[in-house]
Amino acid sequence: MLQGKQSWVFQNHPVIKSTGVSGGPFEANGRLAADFDVLHDDLWMGKTSYEQAHRILLEEAAQTAMKKGELKQEDIQFFLAGDLINQITPSSFAARDLQIPYFGLFGACSTSMEGLALASFMVNYQGANNVLTGASSHNAAVEKQFRYPTEYGGQKPPTAQWTVTGAGVALITKNQSDERLPYTTSATIGKVVDMGLADPFNMGGAMAPAAADTILAHFQDLQLDPSYYDLIVTGDLGKIGRETVIALLKEKGLTIDEKIMKDCGLLIYTNDQPVQSGGSGAGCSATVMYGHLLNEMKKGMYKRILCVATGALLSPLTVQQGETIPCIAHAVSIEI
Amino acid sequence: MLQGKQSWVFQNHPVIKSTGVSGGPFEANGRLAADFDVLHDDLWMGKTSYEQAHRILLEEAAQTAMKKGELKQEDIQFFLAGDLINQITPSSFAARDLQIPYFGLFGACSTSMEGLALASFMVNYQGANNVLTGASSHNAAVEKQFRYPTEYGGQKPPTAQWTVTGAGVALITKNQSDERLPYTTSATIGKVVDMGLADPFNMGGAMAPAAADTILAHFQDLQLDPSYYDLIVTGDLGKIGRETVIALLKEKGLTIDEKIMKDCGLLIYTNDQPVQSGGSGAGCSATVMYGHLLNEMKKGMYKRILCVATGALLSPLTVQQGETIPCIAHAVSIEI
Repeated sequence: MLQGKQSWVFQNHPVIKSTGVSGGPFEANGRLAADFDVLHDDLWMGKTSYEQAHRILLEEAAQTAMKKGELKQEDIQFFLAGDLINQITPSSFAARDLQIPYFGLFGACSTSMEGLALASFMVNYQGANNVLTGASSHNAAVEKQFRYPTEYGGQKPPTAQWTVTGAGVALITKNQSDERLPYTTSATIGKVVDMGLADPFNMGGAMAPAAADTILAHFQDLQLDPSYYDLIVTGDLGKIGRETVIALLKEKGLTIDEKIMKDCGLLIYTNDQPVQSGGSGAGCSATVMYGHLLNEMKKGMYKRILCVATGALLSPLTVQQGETIPCIAHAVSIEI
Repeated sequence: MLQGKQSWVFQNHPVIKSTGVSGGPFEANGRLAADFDVLHDDLWMGKTSYEQAHRILLEEAAQTAMKKGELKQEDIQFFLAGDLINQITPSSFAARDLQIPYFGLFGACSTSMEGLALASFMVNYQGANNVLTGASSHNAAVEKQFRYPTEYGGQKPPTAQWTVTGAGVALITKNQSDERLPYTTSATIGKVVDMGLADPFNMGGAMAPAAADTILAHFQDLQLDPSYYDLIVTGDLGKIGRETVIALLKEKGLTIDEKIMKDCGLLIYTNDQPVQSGGSGAGCSATVMYGHLLNEMKKGMYKRILCVATGALLSPLTVQQGETIPCIAHAVSIEI
């Protein structure tokens, strides 16, 4: 049901029955390694291109989610996925192997919550019994496409972020009230916000205003106070973006206790990994939310999380053509 | 509501309140010129890049749909759009200007019906009062990215298709029973089908099996006979793909009267325009369905149309890497 201007309330509490999370060697050395279901010690993952390896990550995450959820491909009505690669081919090729009716999405690094919002809406209204939704990225495939092949060893400014090699997939099903599982309660769909920043090496700074816009809209639409949540976690703003979003919200009159504001891009790696401002990529919020944070919820650490995935909707071509960076953020509320 | 394996029934009959359709000079000389709201006599449309011109087409179509529907941007909850350009930047930049909460979609040339299915589902269940959904393509921008800059004058085989320069946007609203407007009644979401074809100059042939798969699923899920429809129109299979889909359906035991099987890619241009096998591109089914075919419905020519938009989910990189072409088709039933 529409609530306010741009939010949905999911009265039937679609549940996140299971998830699958896969990652690469850099993630295996990260802070959250124990929360990954599958970890590869090689970026190629036995394939001959990084794009094929990218697809493998998503397929493994989807297969893991189905296995843990004790469902087979034929039980799943829809697969909603997207990534950062041109024409989202890793997602579409994974959909070919999965043979599940498929909605291709593009929201850059906001894709995880774009998919979770749509999947929750579908399940809430009996549009599906079981939906798989996910997002993924592969560091070397993304760097090659957006910046330089990693083999060049190009240097980056401290505002740059490190694209996560990983995929996170969630299996959304109808609420079965006998199980104690996390469920989604609402979603806020973002507008495109562009404050005129044009530096593709400072995505966190560019995306922060979009995150602030969606967070403000969420509390206004739902008529909630930030204290409703134990945790408000942004997708991949990194150090610089996180500071910016807190400042922007304060400026707009919404003061949130900084202790409950975290960022997936700051959670995933250790302090001594060379990730500059933090992690990023469509796989960042997908792996951290569907892996680490849901595990923490199940352990009782959090009861209500607002996950605000942020995306920079640029392309190498728009940067070359001198355009600024349009950004977006979608938020989904997950409770247990 | 889910019906069968992969279809939705829209009991509340979301209406297509209005549409906006824009096109370029080649479309102005085409068979359906009178059905376009806006036609440009120059491919640049006053801009300095084809990608900017691409965005203009989508913005004009969206603005026209809102104007004809007598609604303003603030009345619209969501904008669902996609295109063929890397990271769908024309759609995202149009969403920035429209300032309507935005779902980015990628279904290649199937995007028009992916969007209409989702928009209808949202409106059917009060997830929105008013939704804009559309798809677009620009011949020179798409050719440059997928094949060669048009300035090279590269030759093409007879199986190739001509990318439509155009955008089609529909405004989907709650049914107001006092108005005689077309409405959506069901949708079937396609699986990815890949029969092993790898020739990017024969998209129609590659996409035909996906169209057949979705058409078969539609009639099975809805338990309908093809004679239910006055017209089954595929997205952009062209001459070769249309013949293939008819043969494939016959092989599977579904004989459809060829007179009611049309293809948007064969409708849009005249016989003496040099379009090889026909028109294609994300703007093809969007402009033909939301322009010409809805006009025909309003004139009483058709009462029930099944629009089956087909998409080839390849990228130049997957072709270079020797991959075959994964294809998809989404169908929406429109009645008046």
